[in-house]
Amino acid sequence: MRLSRYFLPVLKETPAEAQIVSHQLMLRAGMIQQLSAGIYNWLPLGYNVLRKVEAIVHDEMQRAGAIPILMPTIQPADLWRESGRYEDYGKEMLRIKDRHERDMLYGPTNEENVTDIFRRHVQSFKQLPLNLYHIQWKFRDEVRPRFGVMRGREFLMKDAYSFDVDQAAAEAAYDNMFVAYLKTFKRMGLTAIPMRAETGPIGGNLSHEFQILASTGESAVYFDAAFEDVDFSAETFDVEVLKSLYAAADDKHDAAACPVPPERLKSGRGIEVGHIFYFGTKYAEPMDAAVIGPDGETRPVHMGSYGIGVSRLVGALIEANHDEKGIVWPESVAPFRVGLVDLRPDDATAHGLAMELYGKLEKAGIETLLDDREERAGAKFATMELIGLPWQVTVGPRGAKAGKVELKSRRSGETVELGPDALLQRLGA
Amino acid sequence: MRLSRYFLPVLKETPAEAQIVSHQLMLRAGMIQQLSAGIYNWLPLGYNVLRKVEAIVHDEMQRAGAIPILMPTIQPADLWRESGRYEDYGKEMLRIKDRHERDMLYGPTNEENVTDIFRRHVQSFKQLPLNLYHIQWKFRDEVRPRFGVMRGREFLMKDAYSFDVDQAAAEAAYDNMFVAYLKTFKRMGLTAIPMRAETGPIGGNLSHEFQILASTGESAVYFDAAFEDVDFSAETFDVEVLKSLYAAADDKHDAAACPVPPERLKSGRGIEVGHIFYFGTKYAEPMDAAVIGPDGETRPVHMGSYGIGVSRLVGALIEANHDEKGIVWPESVAPFRVGLVDLRPDDATAHGLAMELYGKLEKAGIETLLDDREERAGAKFATMELIGLPWQVTVGPRGAKAGKVELKSRRSGETVELGPDALLQRLGA
Repeated sequence: MRLSRYFLPVLKETPAEAQIVSHQLMLRAGMIQQLSAGIYNWLPLGYNVLRKVEAIVHDEMQRAGAIPILMPTIQPADLWRESGRYEDYGKEMLRIKDRHERDMLYGPTNEENVTDIFRRHVQSFKQLPLNLYHIQWKFRDEVRPRFGVMRGREFLMKDAYSFDVDQAAAEAAYDNMFVAYLKTFKRMGLTAIPMRAETGPIGGNLSHEFQILASTGESAVYFDAAFEDVDFSAETFDVEVLKSLYAAADDKHDAAACPVPPERLKSGRGIEVGHIFYFGTKYAEPMDAAVIGPDGETRPVHMGSYGIGVSRLVGALIEANHDEKGIVWPESVAPFRVGLVDLRPDDATAHGLAMELYGKLEKAGIETLLDDREERAGAKFATMELIGLPWQVTVGPRGAKAGKVELKSRRSGETVELGPDALLQRLGA
Repeated sequence: MRLSRYFLPVLKETPAEAQIVSHQLMLRAGMIQQLSAGIYNWLPLGYNVLRKVEAIVHDEMQRAGAIPILMPTIQPADLWRESGRYEDYGKEMLRIKDRHERDMLYGPTNEENVTDIFRRHVQSFKQLPLNLYHIQWKFRDEVRPRFGVMRGREFLMKDAYSFDVDQAAAEAAYDNMFVAYLKTFKRMGLTAIPMRAETGPIGGNLSHEFQILASTGESAVYFDAAFEDVDFSAETFDVEVLKSLYAAADDKHDAAACPVPPERLKSGRGIEVGHIFYFGTKYAEPMDAAVIGPDGETRPVHMGSYGIGVSRLVGALIEANHDEKGIVWPESVAPFRVGLVDLRPDDATAHGLAMELYGKLEKAGIETLLDDREERAGAKFATMELIGLPWQVTVGPRGAKAGKVELKSRRSGETVELGPDALLQRLGA
């Protein structure tokens, strides 16, 4: 993409309304723009990251055997009356009357809807196990939306729902998602700490929330150092071991009673990005979602639900990956992999070399943002640092004449001068 | 994907509520399920097609230079008060009050929102031309939603918005989208007929709607046969020629006055799947979206908007591609490219060969649905015909013993017996 033809409205000043660093940087880097309290437009750079995060979540869900569907944003209130949650859910639920005065709502979650899909089509244990998921916009009408996309009102969530014939099978489905979550966050370059959690308005018996580590995280967490050593490339995991590793939030952690030896106990700050639940027959019973078991008896299906805050992750990723100059994207979620600075578009040699490299990188499928604007070098470098693409390539007149360009790693800050062919090889083109 | 682990709730009977063939087939093939009037769940098979259609639209938009963003579904009413459309838009607009009693709405379209993005960030003609688009769910509260996803209330739309310094540049942007639309529909195996149209509630000076041809289409159209001969693989098109080709809906067509010689005049039935508008400064003026021109004078920006009904296209594709047995997907939008029938999972030789082929097809990246269910052959064939995958491969005991499988084209019905290696080669594996 040529920046001269792109839409990257970076801001020079930090907007006063943004209190946390991810919100500040997303506004400054032209990733988002507020439309209304807690409701954001995703501008091109932000949209690219959102799609990258979404693609990783899709991929790991499908690897784990979950099947993609898409449920609508607007739901009829009647379904929620069946489960009993229509009245329970407070003012966070956005309630709507349609033109025929029917009660509708903007889904804050989808347990009722997916249970309805299930009961209309599944009758036998032979059709199980089943895990259906979608990535869809949700709305929760927070009193005080804040922190940009970290606590918005309209937000993108992945929610998966498992259906099993009994508790044992349902717990295996839960464990499968538990591992899939750790792999998902790892692919984004994040360390996720799973913690036993309250089940809240979703209900149920068993729940973990997943917090990713970031120095600017919202809450303190204590955890077994072994979390950082898990080999996620392994084919299988001992999920019981993973689940037994110590992890606790600040308010639950008791140094004196902690079972982890001090040398293995680590602490950090965390941001919640996922939450999983096993809630048995909580929805199946009132909504009459039942299957015939191997014994010929009909029984309510056992369910779990599994959420990941997809839009929230974009903010969380920045909380975990930034420095004083701007964002430092992990490669797997970077909006572009390479930022190519054509330092002097008016210099024929440098400009020619920059365009040649740009053509070759694009042809090799390496997503490249070419800064071909007529701007001062300082402004170009500042933009590149701010938007945090993993690799910066600078082509200037002096280097070009000598057949050299500069490659810089945004994360390490290391720079190296090298020839065009060596550069392309280094970047995998 | 193994059908035994998939979720494909096909129906044996045609549901009485479905009046048109695409709605009937989408329900029967387990592609969708109604949640509420005009609001649908997309089940796995339907979801796959929706994503294929969406991917083609994304790709052609970006090839045409449009830049992806994502605007939210919920908008503040105030923006629509600025343009004057809040009162104009009737009951089709879903109006919502949030917990603080602020007037919000579920966007039926996004002219106001995108104009707001523009005016906050663009000041100079040097930042033009600009075309921002998104693919997002919309809501229009139809009195009588019907025909499944063809006229739903919640629907997925691609809407693009162009910004230019003057009318001439804006018309060039319009022509660019005009050609992109023809290419987009062509890639889906559809013939699209562009027709001059009224501008309706969007407003403006110039408009075309795009109807795709289907024998079951909603309205009669007359058009120049030359539309069918356009070479869409060409680098450039003479858009003036394309725009001048005769096309008219039934109510506007006058055989006596028609400028096309009878031998070149064709007629068919059409389904509207796209609509483009040039509306000048209709939104820019009341909303104060202005740029400084080359002459230093500030002027309102010239805009156009360009819609494609993404979810509607799934229905339209079926209207244009079906027979008495079911759907006949064009390859580019098929939910899977190959349907592999393991005719007798209990026969070791046949089952072994089916699994071997399945593994090789998947490894080659060829999306394959393996019917590994314990079902009668008749039921398996009927399902394959119904869901309409382009290529059916049948592996049975007799053939497997002789080292042969059967390949059938869903569209032509032609079958051929061939060896496993020849089959894989034929399918590009």
